[in-house]
Amino acid sequence: MILLDGKKISDEITERLKDEIQGDIDTPGLAVILIGSRRDSIKYIEAKRKVCRELGMRFRLFHLLENCEQNMIIRNIKELNNNPTINGIIVQLPLPDGFKTKKILDTIHPSKDVDGFHMINGGNLFLNRNPDFIPCTPLGCMELIDHYGIDVEGLNVCVIGCSNVVGLPLSMLLQQRNATVTMCHIYTRDLKEHTLRTDMIFSCCGVAKIVKEDMVKEGVIIVDVGINFIDGRIVGDVDFENVKDKCSYITPVPGGVGPMTIAMLMKQTIQSWKKKKEL
Amino acid sequence: MILLDGKKISDEITERLKDEIQGDIDTPGLAVILIGSRRDSIKYIEAKRKVCRELGMRFRLFHLLENCEQNMIIRNIKELNNNPTINGIIVQLPLPDGFKTKKILDTIHPSKDVDGFHMINGGNLFLNRNPDFIPCTPLGCMELIDHYGIDVEGLNVCVIGCSNVVGLPLSMLLQQRNATVTMCHIYTRDLKEHTLRTDMIFSCCGVAKIVKEDMVKEGVIIVDVGINFIDGRIVGDVDFENVKDKCSYITPVPGGVGPMTIAMLMKQTIQSWKKKKEL
Repeated sequence: MILLDGKKISDEITERLKDEIQGDIDTPGLAVILIGSRRDSIKYIEAKRKVCRELGMRFRLFHLLENCEQNMIIRNIKELNNNPTINGIIVQLPLPDGFKTKKILDTIHPSKDVDGFHMINGGNLFLNRNPDFIPCTPLGCMELIDHYGIDVEGLNVCVIGCSNVVGLPLSMLLQQRNATVTMCHIYTRDLKEHTLRTDMIFSCCGVAKIVKEDMVKEGVIIVDVGINFIDGRIVGDVDFENVKDKCSYITPVPGGVGPMTIAMLMKQTIQSWKKKKEL
Repeated sequence: MILLDGKKISDEITERLKDEIQGDIDTPGLAVILIGSRRDSIKYIEAKRKVCRELGMRFRLFHLLENCEQNMIIRNIKELNNNPTINGIIVQLPLPDGFKTKKILDTIHPSKDVDGFHMINGGNLFLNRNPDFIPCTPLGCMELIDHYGIDVEGLNVCVIGCSNVVGLPLSMLLQQRNATVTMCHIYTRDLKEHTLRTDMIFSCCGVAKIVKEDMVKEGVIIVDVGINFIDGRIVGDVDFENVKDKCSYITPVPGGVGPMTIAMLMKQTIQSWKKKKEL
């Protein structure tokens, strides 16, 4: 079994990104909008801020109250769209109830949409038209397996969970690389029926330890996107301890996809910054 | 075995559409752009023209030469975008070599994109955001099974072929109705491995009789989108004669999905016309 070491690979990526920025006075800028005070959201944002600092990038947090006006958020984003020192704008999801997520995300200019959630970037991904930005978690999954030389062409792949943020864009990326993708979800009649026969599993449904030893075949490749909490401890969607010995490759949680996601956010922000400099 | 009679259902739909238009002086208008003179394209356009006439809709064909300038097509589309008597604009695909299909399709205003191929309608479909228009063939497949009361929720469904025009949008529609969808294609290692276990097959790969008797299970539901020619005779992707007795439902070819596609084109053009009238 080989561990897909997202921590190590993301550190390598971050080092290379540092070189791309170094020596430039005009450093890339990332703006993060947080509405409300979800503990997990604050934790994720802190992790992003930390990597931004390591890279010498500018990081601006706009922390808005849970009862703020949606129009204020929209105005805030529009200002950032026009702010030349900001190269990437992200809105930390999920939003508190009552906010229109789609409307808010679509206010971000597609050229600064480094999370890849804007409808135009989504449409271009879906239609395989070279989107400017791709959602960071699916992109991080692909970069991680690429680093280990895993070629998905012709493989049978199960994606568990089809959110717009992870599962759905991931299934598109896999399909565009010629994998045979099965999208499983809460309405899937018998998950095991699918996972037991598949060559590769991407689990992104957010259910702790849903993928168990008796559900996978010998030699399977597993990328575990889940971040769940049991007794304050982070666990993935996969019962890692019992499943790992059947795998040819598997990601740990934490230290797998998580750090890759943040590295991809930085990569895309720097990409936006470089593109602007070229203009 | 029950035949999914697309001819009959599309006739019923057309009758209802006729009622929606009747008595109105300002009838809906569909513009079709044909570049070059592919025989199959001309045939499809004639079929569309025929239904337009039956419905009392205006039909305008712009037949351009294979060696025309792309800019001329773009200008043509822009004029139609601004023409208030035109409610739907479609470009007959495939285009001859050398033309930029995406660029041409994205010139059509999304509010007149009754084929649903514009990037914005594609993005909204992908992200489940209520697109104005959906590609007509996948939409026709869904309407056809709806008429027979087939509910895909929880079913295992194989889609064979993942073109932007049919397979890909179809897989989204199925998934949004909670089917467990497997996307098969030319890189799929062993098609039979997937089709043999599935509850439902949508075949849209354009390979004559690729789905054979020994590849499907008893009671399977089959929607055959293929239109292939053998010795001048139209056949689907499914070996209908030998497969049909294993099916609970199956579409004939011709007379299955084909007429549904045209009915959906009319439906969406009328929908665009009604929306304009409401403004």
